[in-house]
Amino acid sequence: MGRWHPNARGRLEQAALELYGERGFEQTTVAEIARRAGLTERTFFRHFADKREVLFAGAGSLRELLVSTVASAPDSVGAIDAVVVALEAAGSLLQERRDYARQRQTIIAANADLRERELIKLASLASAIADTLRRRGVKDPAASLTAEAGIAIFRIAFERWVTDANEQDLPKLIRESLAELKALIAGDRRSLSATAHA
Amino acid sequence: MGRWHPNARGRLEQAALELYGERGFEQTTVAEIARRAGLTERTFFRHFADKREVLFAGAGSLRELLVSTVASAPDSVGAIDAVVVALEAAGSLLQERRDYARQRQTIIAANADLRERELIKLASLASAIADTLRRRGVKDPAASLTAEAGIAIFRIAFERWVTDANEQDLPKLIRESLAELKALIAGDRRSLSATAHA
Repeated sequence: MGRWHPNARGRLEQAALELYGERGFEQTTVAEIARRAGLTERTFFRHFADKREVLFAGAGSLRELLVSTVASAPDSVGAIDAVVVALEAAGSLLQERRDYARQRQTIIAANADLRERELIKLASLASAIADTLRRRGVKDPAASLTAEAGIAIFRIAFERWVTDANEQDLPKLIRESLAELKALIAGDRRSLSATAHA
Repeated sequence: MGRWHPNARGRLEQAALELYGERGFEQTTVAEIARRAGLTERTFFRHFADKREVLFAGAGSLRELLVSTVASAPDSVGAIDAVVVALEAAGSLLQERRDYARQRQTIIAANADLRERELIKLASLASAIADTLRRRGVKDPAASLTAEAGIAIFRIAFERWVTDANEQDLPKLIRESLAELKALIAGDRRSLSATAHA
């Protein structure tokens, strides 16, 4: 019978991130994470399936936020705009934990298995968005294309936000990324010559 | 000292695909693949690292084709158009082996590990395209966005081509997919209401 630790989950996340940063992901054990958090391994496994899942525990709430925002967008909004508004909402959520997001990204970048897992989570977010668009009557290929384009926009904005210390505003970067993609896809600027010989 | 089998690689691919289709990927061994092809396990391992890599052996030449097409595009062409022309060239190549592509896709769809591998290969194609655009002077985020958008276009077109028996022309589907994305991103049609209440 353990004591009740109201913030056990947050403490375990924090401890895991510290240890992955200090020793590397592979070298850290669940026992060490629990000890650092002042909790038991049993408590750890009540919250997370394994040490990898600590890093992906936020994906569920991100997914719910994206799905519920797209599901509740007014009919008058374009599909891509509904998706981008949902991504901006997700961006605001991530922004509240910028230090966490950066530390996490450094750990993921250093490990091939974690990079794969991140790709899969992003692909599953794209699927969830496409499903939501379909339930709103958007046909394929429009539903899949809109979702995939949205995730591409998000990835590029997130990458800038996480690596560039001067870039503070993730929702703004997401809007800029959409504008950039519009310009690129319109194809009326950014010819290879314009950039190659600039 | 084995005999020289000029088409050993093709025979091993064919045998592997048949067996994965008949018994499932997990249930098939390298020994069985070699036997079906009339070759030895040693010959198998001269061509492929493991039974999974048989399904991804084409990724290298696809990558080279994409990179060389983007690298040799005239300066006057827009970055996104250079990428789409490269993807169309890849589409023509895949088209020559439509039956193979379909069988392969069925096998991959049935196995989570293979689906992950496919995602990773696609992500690495996007990276290779973005690198090539950067070497041509395209800055980020334009280079990454163009590459990611290109791969999204390709995935959606490929999905239609491989699942719909009436869709014969993959390069045409890739062009349509680009046109669709342009329209979606422009956002001037495809509002949620237009589709939801159609």
